[in-house]
Parts: sequence; C-alpha cells; structure tokens
Amino acid sequence: MGEARRQIKLGAFLHETGHHVAAWRLPEAQADGGANFAHYVELARIAERGRFDMLFLADTVGLWQGHEAALNRTARVAYFEPLTLLSALAAVTRHIGFVATATTTYNEPYQIARQFASLDLISGGRAGWNLVTSSNPTEAFNFSRNAHPAHADRYARAREFADVVLGLWDSWDDEAFIRDKESGVFFKPGGMRELNHAGAAFQVRGPLNVPRSPQGHPVLVQAGSSEAGRSLAAETAEAIFTAHQTLGDAQEFYADVKVKTVASGRHPDDVKIMPGIFPVLGRTAQEAQDKFERLQALVHPDVGLSLLSGMIGVDLRGHDVDGPLPFIPESEGGKSRAVLLSELARREHLSIRQLYLRIAGARGHKQVIGTPAQIADHMEEWFVSGAADGFNVMPPYLPGGLSDFVELVTPELQRRGLFRRDYEGRTLRENLGLRRPSNRTQG
Amino acid sequence: MGEARRQIKLGAFLHETGHHVAAWRLPEAQADGGANFAHYVELARIAERGRFDMLFLADTVGLWQGHEAALNRTARVAYFEPLTLLSALAAVTRHIGFVATATTTYNEPYQIARQFASLDLISGGRAGWNLVTSSNPTEAFNFSRNAHPAHADRYARAREFADVVLGLWDSWDDEAFIRDKESGVFFKPGGMRELNHAGAAFQVRGPLNVPRSPQGHPVLVQAGSSEAGRSLAAETAEAIFTAHQTLGDAQEFYADVKVKTVASGRHPDDVKIMPGIFPVLGRTAQEAQDKFERLQALVHPDVGLSLLSGMIGVDLRGHDVDGPLPFIPESEGGKSRAVLLSELARREHLSIRQLYLRIAGARGHKQVIGTPAQIADHMEEWFVSGAADGFNVMPPYLPGGLSDFVELVTPELQRRGLFRRDYEGRTLRENLGLRRPSNRTQG
Repeated sequence: MGEARRQIKLGAFLHETGHHVAAWRLPEAQADGGANFAHYVELARIAERGRFDMLFLADTVGLWQGHEAALNRTARVAYFEPLTLLSALAAVTRHIGFVATATTTYNEPYQIARQFASLDLISGGRAGWNLVTSSNPTEAFNFSRNAHPAHADRYARAREFADVVLGLWDSWDDEAFIRDKESGVFFKPGGMRELNHAGAAFQVRGPLNVPRSPQGHPVLVQAGSSEAGRSLAAETAEAIFTAHQTLGDAQEFYADVKVKTVASGRHPDDVKIMPGIFPVLGRTAQEAQDKFERLQALVHPDVGLSLLSGMIGVDLRGHDVDGPLPFIPESEGGKSRAVLLSELARREHLSIRQLYLRIAGARGHKQVIGTPAQIADHMEEWFVSGAADGFNVMPPYLPGGLSDFVELVTPELQRRGLFRRDYEGRTLRENLGLRRPSNRTQG
Repeated sequence: MGEARRQIKLGAFLHETGHHVAAWRLPEAQADGGANFAHYVELARIAERGRFDMLFLADTVGLWQGHEAALNRTARVAYFEPLTLLSALAAVTRHIGFVATATTTYNEPYQIARQFASLDLISGGRAGWNLVTSSNPTEAFNFSRNAHPAHADRYARAREFADVVLGLWDSWDDEAFIRDKESGVFFKPGGMRELNHAGAAFQVRGPLNVPRSPQGHPVLVQAGSSEAGRSLAAETAEAIFTAHQTLGDAQEFYADVKVKTVASGRHPDDVKIMPGIFPVLGRTAQEAQDKFERLQALVHPDVGLSLLSGMIGVDLRGHDVDGPLPFIPESEGGKSRAVLLSELARREHLSIRQLYLRIAGARGHKQVIGTPAQIADHMEEWFVSGAADGFNVMPPYLPGGLSDFVELVTPELQRRGLFRRDYEGRTLRENLGLRRPSNRTQG
C-alpha cells in the first residue's frame, strides 16, 4: 500500500433550523429544530451516513444580540446546550465526532476539562472542544459583569485556560488504571500527577477526576482569526474553523497559520484549516438560485438590519438601508468579522440591504450556489490550491440542506477521490489524520 | 376510579463500581465501571426495568479526599462527569429520571440552569438537579481558592443560586413558541422575560436561552441535613436524599421538614423525603450475611481509616484503630454526617475499626442485610410510619447489587401494593407525584 492520498475533512456546522436567518420559515424546514432532540438524532445520522468527520455546534451563553423588534422573528433564541446535546447524540451514533463550543471567558478550566474528557470517554474518543472567547455583549450580563473584559485580556485568559485544560487532560498515564482485584491496587503509584498550576487567572491543583482520553485528549478547535486568535491557534489548535470570501484571502490565512504553527514547534499537518462553506444546492444552477431566492425573500428587514448591526458592532438603525455602509471602527468584539464585511461591502459596492442579504445565510462565510459539481469544483479548487484542508459545511436549512449535501455532493467528492468512502479510524483524531498526543508529563 | 394509593418512590443511587468502598475488588463487580459507558447503559436499563423513578449521581469536582496511602486503593478517583453521562443515558432510555449533583459553590447559575434545562428537553422531562454546596476540601484547590467559603456563606450563595436558577427556568411562557412560518413570528411578543436579578453574589439579566422545560422545570433535589440545609430544602426542594440510622431519627427529620415545608407556604406532598438504604441481599439471611462479610474482608485498613477520617473531618492516623473514636468537633464541612457518626459510635460502643467497617458500604446511611422480604419489611415500616416517602437505593456493588434488587425486592414491594407496576406518567415529576410548577412570572 502506498501513502494514503490527502483527502478533504468535513464538519457539519449545525444551527438549529439551518444557517440562513430565515431558514425556519421555509415550509420544508424543521421550525422547532432547536428544541427537538429527534431532529438532531436525524441530523447526526445523516452526517454519519455521509462520512462527515464531525458535527460542530457554535454557542452563545445568552440571547442572540438582536434588536428588540427583530428578536422574536429569529429561531436563534432558545435551543439545546451543546455539551448535553452532543453527549446524548454520542449514545446513538458510532463514528461521527462532536465538537462543542465553550467559552473561556465565563467558564472554569476544571469544569471544561472534565466535561469534554467525559464526552470523549462516552463517545469512545470522538470529542473536540472549540475554544472561544466571549464577544457577544449580552453574555456578560448573565455572569455578573457589565461588559466583557478587553480583547487582549480575554485572549490572555484564553491562553492560560487552554494551558490548564491541556495539563488536566494529562493527569493520568494512559495505562494508569490496572484495577488489580487480588492486590487491591486500583491505579499504579505514580500513574497520577497533580498539575499545581499557579497563574495570573487560575490556580488549579488537579488532578482531573476523569481518566486520560481514548484519543489522548479531545481535539482542540479554534475559530478566532484576529492576530491574537491566529497566534493562539498556531500554538494549540488542531483544527481551525475560519471564514473567507476569496481564494486569495483563504490562501493567505492558510499559509500564515501553517508558518506560525511551524514556528511554534509543530508540524504543519498538526492543524487542519477548515473554512466555512454555505452551499445552496440544486440539480441545476437555476434550481439552486431559485432556492436561494426563496430563502432571501423570507428575510424580514428588521431581522436583516439587526443581524448586520450585531455582526459589525454598530447599530445601523436610522441609516438608509439602500445607502452605503458607514465607516466601521475596530471594536473590542470580534475584530476580524467586522473588517471582513466592511471590505466586502466596499469591494462590491453593496448597500446596507444588499450586505445584510449577503450575510443572511453565510454570515461572512463563503456562499456557493449551484449544482453538486459546481460546489465540488469550489471545494476541490480551495483544497488543492493551499486554501483549505477541509470545510465546515453550513447547511442553509435543516434537515434538507444537510441531506441534499450528503446525497449529491458527497458522492461527487468521493468519485473524484477527494473524500473518504469509509471512516479511517475509530476516533475523531484518527479520522482527521491527527496524531495522538503523548502525555506531556508522563515519565 | 378511587384515589391512587400512596406508593414508595425509588432512586437508584449509583457509584461507579458500587457503594461499598471495596466493591470493585469483588470478582463479580465491574471494576472499570466509572469509565465504562456500556456499564451505565446496562444499569439504566436494569433500573428502568425495575420501574425506578430515577438514577441519582453524587459528585465531587476533585479527587476523593483520601490519604495518599489509600487513594490508589479506591475506585472513586476517575469517572464520568454526571451531566454528560446522564444526557447520554437519556438518549437510550424512555422512562427513568436522571438526577445529577452540581455544586453551587463553584458553578455559575446561568450554566447550571442551562445544562439542566437542556437535559430536561433531551430526555422529554426526566431531569432533576441535586443542589449541593461544596464540602470536600480538595475541590477548592481546583477553583483558584485555598479553602471553601464558610458554611453559612456557602448556604447564602446556594440560596441565591437556587433563586436565580428557578427564575431563569421561567424565562419563557410554556406556549411562547408559536413559530408561525407565514407571519414570520417565532415567539409571542411578551412570551419572554428578562430576570434582571441583582443580588449579593450574582447579577444575572437572562433570559435563559432554552425553552421552558417539559415538566415546568427540572425537579429540585437536596441532600443537606444541617439546620441550614433543612431550611433551604423546605423552601425549595422537591425531593430530599437523607441519611438516618434509626427509625426515630428518620421520623424526627421527616416531621420537621414537612412542618418547615408548610411554614414556607408549600404543601407537605410538595417534597418527597427519601432516606438512603444500603441493601445487602441474599435468598437466605445467611447468604446475605456471607456476601456482606466477603465485601468487608476486602477493605484495606488504609482505605477504611482514610474513609472515616474524610467523613468526620479529623485525621485519625496515629489513633489505635481498636480503641474508641476521639471527640469530634463541629467543622465547616458537612456538619451533620460527623455528628451522626459520633453518636453511632458512642451508642454502640464501636472502635475506630468497627466504625470504619460500618461505613465502608453505606457511609452513614442505613444498611439492611437480609432476604428480599426482610428488606421489604424495613422499607414498608419506614414508609408507613412517617419516616420516608421513598428510598434512595445504594447497591453495594454493580451491576449485581442493582439487578438483585430489581429481581428480588421490587416484585415483593409490588406484591404488597407498595410500588408501581408501571410508570404513572411520562416525566420524572409525574412519576414522583409532584405538581407541575406554574411559571412564577407568567401573566
């Protein structure tokens, strides 16, 4: 057997009723998806049938930060908490991985290390943690604060948080537990280590009260693409979910992160870079375009304006929606997304209305409207030209947007030899082609 | 139909390999139970077959506080985190309830409200939260503290914590989500409310980003039996897990809590009092006694001494194990358990060794060794004489200790008309005979 051919990795990035902000209004969409467990079981099974590497859930520990007039017109207000949902899905699936978002700003590292280690055990090695810092202002109010810490402080805390979590995940040797009934020795003396972390934000003694993970530790995922986010990702992330509009931008990001990864003493293959893709599929290009227009026509103007205001951190109410976007200053929120959208509007001379319609589905990620072959072409081009190791697929609506992808695009990618026909391994890490990390402290 | 006869409620209180500290050494015990998901699936199915109301998991956010020499001789060092484990079990069961312990000392109310609300949705209304304050000293070291807050401060925080969680659980009207695709209105205006809690420990705006629970809100459980614990339980708890050695003590507790419950403006049936019972079963009394002796013979002296030291908050190393227990002062840890054990030793003239062997299984709870009829007799006596509404059953080892109970004791209780033959309802609350709480804020 020769060396395995490099293939595309796929995440299924699931919002409750789909990524398009008006998805829930589509007749064929599951409008109660956010609170319907059977809906998620169906999605997990579709994704597993389609050999996806993982399900990915974003998260906010609070409400969507919409304008009051728009809030009750969106489905993103009440839904399952990711760790409990993914744990439940682990029990009814065998292969697919589970990546949950959890913020470092309002959690404690011992709890996060523990819940993800537990999910990893329950699933037999299929867990991943998407490490984020909180940027949605409404989250602070739920955690006894009036505002988030500043961007730099959030990242300093995130870095220390990751360090503590990784340390706790190495509390036990892989073979620590001998459970010798005869002698009465449950684990090897020396098989357990305290962490004794004492840093600026956290003092954590450890050890973690969960055994070492089947895959060494859960896969560490990040999505931040600011300079601070890139640096942290290059040091620690094993997969990066990112958003790019153009091939050039994606290539620049890819090259930069791989260089930074090497500079951090790691191999470029130790991190998989997975841009988002929002695919709108039709059996013909016209059918795809029609489906997209059907979705766009369902966007209420209050929702569009609110969505865009939230994403760029500037309240746009009062501006002429058919006029240009005003100047957007850098904020302490998510920096990179605002810049990306400003540039998009300038580059394509979009009005506010045109811009909110542009993000109503993909929210700054790349949207591709077309036939299965056209969507596969796009993925292949980015994959072979140094822009992506895989993609985070963002179905416009659910469950149809995911099942269409699995029935139409996945076979096309497989025919081209770009995607697996069967899972390579038992763990998420094995399927992603990531090395099993050795225990950093094991003697 | 006449009024339903009052019947016993049953919880299955599961430690990873069983409650007896040496359980894992028994040849028939599942020694790797703490990290074996299939083991818990089996346990959940056994308990569901036996019509238990719920599984109950205790928790510590740190290691068992054992002496170093004893630590690696116990199985209580590394195991699943309760919320992830119970969420996974919810996906493979239909009837049984799930009660997880989560501390108010080192969590944030928004996260706890959210994860339990999510478990409740996933399970279709089968979740309960056992509210505790942290007393194990090793927990503080994992949360950037050198010691726990004082007992009174922990209870003040717990009380405010419960208030915030209950408030968040009422963020949405039961019928808030209309999801009208035609008009584009996802939830009724006015169906959502901010909490705007501003207290001594927490400022939480809300609303919770999870819909109201199928059972109104998850069942609120408590286990504290100190004065502060009893008062908090009388105000808010819907089930109380408690520990009593004698019928008289259990009756005193039962009467006191029911009186306090009424004084808090609630009905006595609004709280179910469930003492622990550690049943060692045999088809004959001798067979039961033999099984118990087999377990006791497996207790290593280091483990016994360490267990007792931890439970009473005094390091007993250096004391003559065949001499009497020294005077035990009241501590800031769990107050009531130390007092209970001191009184037990004095009443029965137990040496330290005899006392640690006494708690090696039941840890202060009532242990009953005998035939199915004898165990049923004990339960019936406590149930009919104002000492219990039900029991938290603590299998000595697993899975056999649970399956023996279901196969031998459950049918005996059913024959006597003391226990259900089928689940009464779909939710934990319906099975426990608890009212569905109305939304405290709904207009």
